[in-house]
Amino acid sequence: MRATVIHGERDVRLEERPEPTIQGPRDAVVRVVAACVCGSDLWGYRGVRPASGPIGHELVGVVEQLGDAVTDIAVGDFVIAPFSLSDGSCQACRNGMSAACDHKTFFGSDDVDGHPIDGAQGERVRVPFADSSLVVVPGPIDEALIPHLLTLSDVMSTGHHAAVSAGVGPGDVVAVVGDGAVGLCGVIAAKRLGAERIIVMSRNPARQEQARRFGATDVIEQRGDEAADAVRALLDGDLADAVLECVGTKESMRQALSVVRGGGRVGYVGVPAEGTELKVQYLFGRNVAIAGGMAPARDYIPELLPDVLDGTIRPGEVFDLTLPLDEVAEAYAAMDERRAIKVLLTT
Amino acid sequence: MRATVIHGERDVRLEERPEPTIQGPRDAVVRVVAACVCGSDLWGYRGVRPASGPIGHELVGVVEQLGDAVTDIAVGDFVIAPFSLSDGSCQACRNGMSAACDHKTFFGSDDVDGHPIDGAQGERVRVPFADSSLVVVPGPIDEALIPHLLTLSDVMSTGHHAAVSAGVGPGDVVAVVGDGAVGLCGVIAAKRLGAERIIVMSRNPARQEQARRFGATDVIEQRGDEAADAVRALLDGDLADAVLECVGTKESMRQALSVVRGGGRVGYVGVPAEGTELKVQYLFGRNVAIAGGMAPARDYIPELLPDVLDGTIRPGEVFDLTLPLDEVAEAYAAMDERRAIKVLLTT
Repeated sequence: MRATVIHGERDVRLEERPEPTIQGPRDAVVRVVAACVCGSDLWGYRGVRPASGPIGHELVGVVEQLGDAVTDIAVGDFVIAPFSLSDGSCQACRNGMSAACDHKTFFGSDDVDGHPIDGAQGERVRVPFADSSLVVVPGPIDEALIPHLLTLSDVMSTGHHAAVSAGVGPGDVVAVVGDGAVGLCGVIAAKRLGAERIIVMSRNPARQEQARRFGATDVIEQRGDEAADAVRALLDGDLADAVLECVGTKESMRQALSVVRGGGRVGYVGVPAEGTELKVQYLFGRNVAIAGGMAPARDYIPELLPDVLDGTIRPGEVFDLTLPLDEVAEAYAAMDERRAIKVLLTT
Repeated sequence: MRATVIHGERDVRLEERPEPTIQGPRDAVVRVVAACVCGSDLWGYRGVRPASGPIGHELVGVVEQLGDAVTDIAVGDFVIAPFSLSDGSCQACRNGMSAACDHKTFFGSDDVDGHPIDGAQGERVRVPFADSSLVVVPGPIDEALIPHLLTLSDVMSTGHHAAVSAGVGPGDVVAVVGDGAVGLCGVIAAKRLGAERIIVMSRNPARQEQARRFGATDVIEQRGDEAADAVRALLDGDLADAVLECVGTKESMRQALSVVRGGGRVGYVGVPAEGTELKVQYLFGRNVAIAGGMAPARDYIPELLPDVLDGTIRPGEVFDLTLPLDEVAEAYAAMDERRAIKVLLTT
């Protein structure tokens, strides 16, 4: 089969790889229907973090093979794969926090038994912990829904995690740091949870427009202290009740803290840059709560899926470019050069 | 009048001070009925942080004088003074987080107009922002309740803040780091919010016993990695859902993080030691939420007061020594030498 492999900085190639097969009784083999490129894939692509081997962690597809111990999934099922694969039985999983699973594994790395797992940007993948990871979408599948379903794999679930972690509730004023696909999905999530006002920080006209379509009420182009001043100007001197930090740099975390009110909450989901630290004395003095991390997509998909199926939310609009898997190198380049927010790959 | 003044390391004296008088229209003058020594007063006493001038920030008393603008309090009222004084109108105050008030001030420091505020360990205090700070207790006052009422000024409200910040709810397994008055009040708060199991970390038999009286179900004497192992041994391999960090050192924060499950919550209220930092990558990987800070006692007192008045909670049991104000130096010494958990001072 063909699958994407990253070889180093700005070097991704579609290559011939071995067909995945069942390795353990809890495995599934899934034929990928759609995959995509994630902002976090760009860290490796840009050489910010070392990366090599099969890549991609977002996919929807059709189940082709199953291990003997899989009971809740059938061959032929259309499934959403969350970006992290979890055992479903550890304390974190039992508490709805599959992203902190004791045995979590990822596409493109090895499973708990040491068998390699394929990357999602390919034609097929083996999925360990199939029952406790994959979510079946009841068929038949409307093709037009595929981009929206695909976002549940990561970006929509991650935006939702930012909003849930920031405790967004009815009437809240929410600020969103980051206008990438996750930030935009954070706007959807904040609106869905009842936010009254949603302020997006963005300098990109296309992203500003998409944010407004998703429910953003205000856009701020300023950065740093000026951004906090701009928020105060919008809010009659106040700051945001909740902030979604959807980037993961030191600057974005500092920005998030600068626009949240005393006693407010920051939900962060950007994979944090090395060395990002929070000064407890600062948090203490302002009583700012910090929560977040890797989204437990497996736990959120069942909650978000009905809203996708009935069209209440349309997170697939974050895809502004669709390419065949053949053109995966161009998909990376388009995102790297910010010509596209997020690229969908068809197989 | 007589009031306590700290002059430096292990040097507190009861001295003659000017009688407080009304300085502004929102002031009250309160005759102190009972005050006490706080664990945080010991930071200055021990020379860990520089401290000089009037000291003490916990008191209950009777209102003697009022400024013209005070409307909700009458001369003769019995009041609880929260340890921080707040304007009642800024965004934080409007959101129930008076501890992050834009104009918060403290006993022993200056008010927003630059007028000095008396320390609480004295015979009388001037209280700025009287309406939005003091809480009236409906009379007549049962003398036996005074120690319990006094804890609402700080330690009981602070223990409650740890539990609220850690999101303690019905059925939770809670670990409490710190067996001082705040940690013990944290046990009361966790039980009151429905915790099923409360594990206290303590090596002191008297404090262990008091913790059990307040509702602790288990005691752990280990520290560091051994404490986490001990928690796992108690919980069949699991860790705590919520942890109350009631100390404020780097070690205690590390300890708290070591006993909380993936996706769990740490509520911290110990005044943090300088330089205490949280590594975001660590929190991200485990999806641990961190919240807390200075307790908004003014906001919590109305919620906790009914439970004190009807005897549902008896936080005044944290006072294991009562001394007249004359013996304030001995009160500090007894706490410093850990001969007493917390000392009540009568005027």
